[in-house]
Amino acid sequence: MQNVDKITKRDEDFALWYTDVVKAADLADYGSIKGSMIIRPNGYALWEEIVKVLDNEFKKTNHKNLQMPMLIPESLLNVEKNHVEGFAPEAAWVTYGGDNKLEERLCIRPTSEVLFCVHFKKIVNSYRDLPLLYNQWCTIMRWEKTTRPFLRSREILWQEGHTMHETEKEARSETLKMLHIYEDFQRNYLALPVIVGRKTEKEKFAGAVETYTIEAMMYNGYALQNGTSHYFGQNFSKAFNIEFLNKDNKLANPYQTSWGVTTRMIGAIIMTHSDDHGLVIPPKIAPIKVNLVPIGKDKEIINKIENLKINLLKNSITCDINDKDKTPGFKFAESEVLGYPIRLELGKRDLREDKCTLVRRDTLEKIIVKLDDIVETIKTLLEDIQENLYNRALKKRDSMLYEAKTYDEFKKIAQEKPGFIKINWCGNTSCEDKIKEETGLKSRCIIEEAADGPCPICLQKAKQKIYFGKQY
Amino acid sequence: MQNVDKITKRDEDFALWYTDVVKAADLADYGSIKGSMIIRPNGYALWEEIVKVLDNEFKKTNHKNLQMPMLIPESLLNVEKNHVEGFAPEAAWVTYGGDNKLEERLCIRPTSEVLFCVHFKKIVNSYRDLPLLYNQWCTIMRWEKTTRPFLRSREILWQEGHTMHETEKEARSETLKMLHIYEDFQRNYLALPVIVGRKTEKEKFAGAVETYTIEAMMYNGYALQNGTSHYFGQNFSKAFNIEFLNKDNKLANPYQTSWGVTTRMIGAIIMTHSDDHGLVIPPKIAPIKVNLVPIGKDKEIINKIENLKINLLKNSITCDINDKDKTPGFKFAESEVLGYPIRLELGKRDLREDKCTLVRRDTLEKIIVKLDDIVETIKTLLEDIQENLYNRALKKRDSMLYEAKTYDEFKKIAQEKPGFIKINWCGNTSCEDKIKEETGLKSRCIIEEAADGPCPICLQKAKQKIYFGKQY
Repeated sequence: MQNVDKITKRDEDFALWYTDVVKAADLADYGSIKGSMIIRPNGYALWEEIVKVLDNEFKKTNHKNLQMPMLIPESLLNVEKNHVEGFAPEAAWVTYGGDNKLEERLCIRPTSEVLFCVHFKKIVNSYRDLPLLYNQWCTIMRWEKTTRPFLRSREILWQEGHTMHETEKEARSETLKMLHIYEDFQRNYLALPVIVGRKTEKEKFAGAVETYTIEAMMYNGYALQNGTSHYFGQNFSKAFNIEFLNKDNKLANPYQTSWGVTTRMIGAIIMTHSDDHGLVIPPKIAPIKVNLVPIGKDKEIINKIENLKINLLKNSITCDINDKDKTPGFKFAESEVLGYPIRLELGKRDLREDKCTLVRRDTLEKIIVKLDDIVETIKTLLEDIQENLYNRALKKRDSMLYEAKTYDEFKKIAQEKPGFIKINWCGNTSCEDKIKEETGLKSRCIIEEAADGPCPICLQKAKQKIYFGKQY
Repeated sequence: MQNVDKITKRDEDFALWYTDVVKAADLADYGSIKGSMIIRPNGYALWEEIVKVLDNEFKKTNHKNLQMPMLIPESLLNVEKNHVEGFAPEAAWVTYGGDNKLEERLCIRPTSEVLFCVHFKKIVNSYRDLPLLYNQWCTIMRWEKTTRPFLRSREILWQEGHTMHETEKEARSETLKMLHIYEDFQRNYLALPVIVGRKTEKEKFAGAVETYTIEAMMYNGYALQNGTSHYFGQNFSKAFNIEFLNKDNKLANPYQTSWGVTTRMIGAIIMTHSDDHGLVIPPKIAPIKVNLVPIGKDKEIINKIENLKINLLKNSITCDINDKDKTPGFKFAESEVLGYPIRLELGKRDLREDKCTLVRRDTLEKIIVKLDDIVETIKTLLEDIQENLYNRALKKRDSMLYEAKTYDEFKKIAQEKPGFIKINWCGNTSCEDKIKEETGLKSRCIIEEAADGPCPICLQKAKQKIYFGKQY
């Protein structure tokens, strides 16, 4: 691990620290064209863990996976007016197949609403065909100007759920159900104390009636939009002329939703939990929970370490051995930079005394344990680490949540303190725009909390409370 | 299942029968642009089973998954001469990002050798960094003129393994190891009696030193190339100037391999095992093994069926219930068209007598079983079906394997009988070309069997035996 010592201090330069951790933990590398990213095996293993859990949740709630084509004809993208306005400016266009110029430009999917609509139109006839609950795991392309590993790249690995329902009620309930599956997953597995709410008119998805969002706060107080769930109403089904015979034997347009999360969640893990020593991964999502480090090369030690590995695996605790020809100090640092939740150290003296040392990655605290107690201790420790990471992130987040009653107060906080600022809001885009222009902060989400005063910008009656923050 | 009765007879029109089965079993649908395919939930579930098994095999042999970008700059595709000649004619080119014309055309990957090479060059320094054993699951794009669901489409779901080694020996051994993982998988899981061998110079992968292939024979005697494993030698590492310090502390070019299989395997399952009633899936790869069909709507029957389901699931036998408001006859046909390995029928009289009927999909044979014996009987039956499908396909294949000692004999067989024809071969492309031109048959693979006579085309000394056949 030549990169162990090359991590910039987090409090010195957060942006540089982030890319240093991505590099040192070998999560991603840059591709050969601007804005393209190679997800390296360590990063991809993390994504595979995420996929495993979420895919299971989707299936438990009766969603079925399928695979749509990657290319969208321009004429199809143009059908829903708001949608094309939102996505055409950042579309990558295929214009040639071999040597032949195509009759129509094809866009690499930036998202697949229109493809699903064409398919839905073909397969939906009656209310008996509904609901349709689909999901796909794939990559999408958005020709972004500025990029940063995991947070913003031109090609994005994600899942997109697309569903179609008989009634508004069902579709609205689906939108919230999936939002809460994301929320629970991010809280319980990624240990992210996310804030959940609704996007403003200005910030909602191009073509949606309503967009719900998961807003995570990073260590530096910046917001990361970490998943969205959209209620489309009949916007797309009307534009694409999708009709079905309802229970009254009348033609009706169905109601739709879509929802997605991306590899950006890996960025959130890094920016929330990691530190100056490198990556920190919440145990429940860590591909490998324990890194076994033999101290010395004695056959006895190696044998014991191998037995420990077998025993841990038998107890469903994933682990691996660092048997590189390197010093213990090097291996300890490597184990830390790669983010193993627990490191187990075993030397000659330990062996004599039937004990070993466990080091928890979150606090770097060392714990001496009898070898006989190893499985139970590790199980408890993994739970402790998971809980501690969440609580630590929650405390940090809460320390950066503010409420402003006046615009002066808002501007002062925005200038001096990183984090989210809550205000009462009239609901008008003009006030939202003013804040954006004058402070650089964008609306994060409208939350479920009643307004208790006027909008601090226009001083008119407020309808709701809303968070503002700087964003990635 | 409105399509149950719409399947063309297999012996009447094999091509139409195939697309009818794809449609009736709801495996795939056509997308909105030519040559594009939607893999429907039934087809995708089959792919997920395939991925699960193979991914596990790759990981057991120490391969790591990663994700490379989708777009290749034209200049990069041009580096290896043979490679670009093979792939440029069917490349899909991206020329615009939003409204901006790109400085260089980007091709949607038809395969990712060149992307891996650029990455390898960056991360390999010493023999200590080798071997590198990588794999990725992704989609590729090849602008094919004629397309057919699963067999040939413009966008293909696949995996591509890419490895880099210190020595020729290691790389050659990797090439064969992965070939045999494919072979074992296709034999043991897909029940395909595949023939394994080496491609001729003419048919090998663009840029490879040697290409090994898995050739499956379809029910109609046509060949389906169902997976390939390539030994590259130093072709790419020299073209891309990839060097490492070897054990003698000298700069050397590493040796490479790549290997891949695609959703085409789903086509092979259909064309090998399925029949006039619809899809037949080998039990070991069937997403759902047993379809439970209640006969009648009695609460007693429904309760019992639900108990049976719980019991089967407890015994790790996947199953589902057909509780549609349809006649038993309709449900039986549906169960057959969808390819469940076993159908379980339970009616009122069965319940009184504590028994039920099992129908095996391969032979449609009915078996009356005591409800108490259900789990054991189903387990044995699933194994039987798996074995029977393999043996049936093997027998069918063997009945279409021919050997020709003279060119006249070859031409007679080629004209009259579908299947593969084995000949002694001199090894010259001119004889291979002559056969192609005059009979339409292409070389399938050179097999490990010593020549025992002259090449029937040029009458010169033969070096090896080779199969020819018509192909998809």
